[in-house]
Amino acid sequence: MKTLYLALAVVVPVTLAAAAGAASDPDKPASPIYGVTIPDGYRQWEFIAPALEAPPLDELRTVVGNRIAVDAYRAGTLPFPDGSILVKLAWKKTASPDFEPASVPGPATTVQVMVKDSRKYATTGGWGFGRFIDGRPVDEAQHRTCFACHEARVPQRDFVFTRYAP
Amino acid sequence: MKTLYLALAVVVPVTLAAAAGAASDPDKPASPIYGVTIPDGYRQWEFIAPALEAPPLDELRTVVGNRIAVDAYRAGTLPFPDGSILVKLAWKKTASPDFEPASVPGPATTVQVMVKDSRKYATTGGWGFGRFIDGRPVDEAQHRTCFACHEARVPQRDFVFTRYAP
Repeated sequence: MKTLYLALAVVVPVTLAAAAGAASDPDKPASPIYGVTIPDGYRQWEFIAPALEAPPLDELRTVVGNRIAVDAYRAGTLPFPDGSILVKLAWKKTASPDFEPASVPGPATTVQVMVKDSRKYATTGGWGFGRFIDGRPVDEAQHRTCFACHEARVPQRDFVFTRYAP
Repeated sequence: MKTLYLALAVVVPVTLAAAAGAASDPDKPASPIYGVTIPDGYRQWEFIAPALEAPPLDELRTVVGNRIAVDAYRAGTLPFPDGSILVKLAWKKTASPDFEPASVPGPATTVQVMVKDSRKYATTGGWGFGRFIDGRPVDEAQHRTCFACHEARVPQRDFVFTRYAP
């Protein structure tokens, strides 16, 4: 019985996230061009890898993925299947007040989302993009730059920069 | 039916991890002093926060927690309840080959584990410690340093350095 409760508790966010990630919720702020929204429950998704972004951004970052995306990473599946969603969380890199050699997350900065839908986003490698600050999408001009950079730099990995950290 | 399958797939690692984290598996390499082992399934646990460790270690890190620990973080529960387990993964910080401003995880270095058991580890703040390289615990001398540092620096947070990244 205890196991069943655990199961339900975990499944709810997964199900919500799968629905919301499809960018079909008209009540949520959606990115220009792509109509991508921030998926519910993403903070509970499995992490793919951390990263560090040099100044001027000077950020610590963590990419998480939904179940479809994580399974694809583990299996080495490329291209990622439709329904894959990746979310990158970012924070200003801040000196730890507790341990001098460490830097830790400061204030959150952006949330960036990639949603795979090979039909809907056929002209951008099958990916829709969304970049959000305080839950609001940034402007169309910024969104126009997403795919060009991904396409130029990581075409061999289905346009995804982040690799799975072992 | 699809939902039920998802539920089972997720619950299995959670259950295994809870059992293994208690350091009761005699077949797994255990840390000196504490007898802490690497919990099964920890790579699938929710992430608490990333961090950067300056040279000479020069590492990117991510702390994950089991369900008990994550729930305590979200609720702001201190001290952490018995059964809480935190695992810190670490990798050499490496320049991204794909995007110049970014640094990404290189080779994995250590896995560090904290297990809360207020009776078993009563003399070390209720925490047992394990530091592992390639799955093998480091020596007793290194393990003797764990609690002294945690005790000196973060007594107000139940001896846990890492804060939950929003």
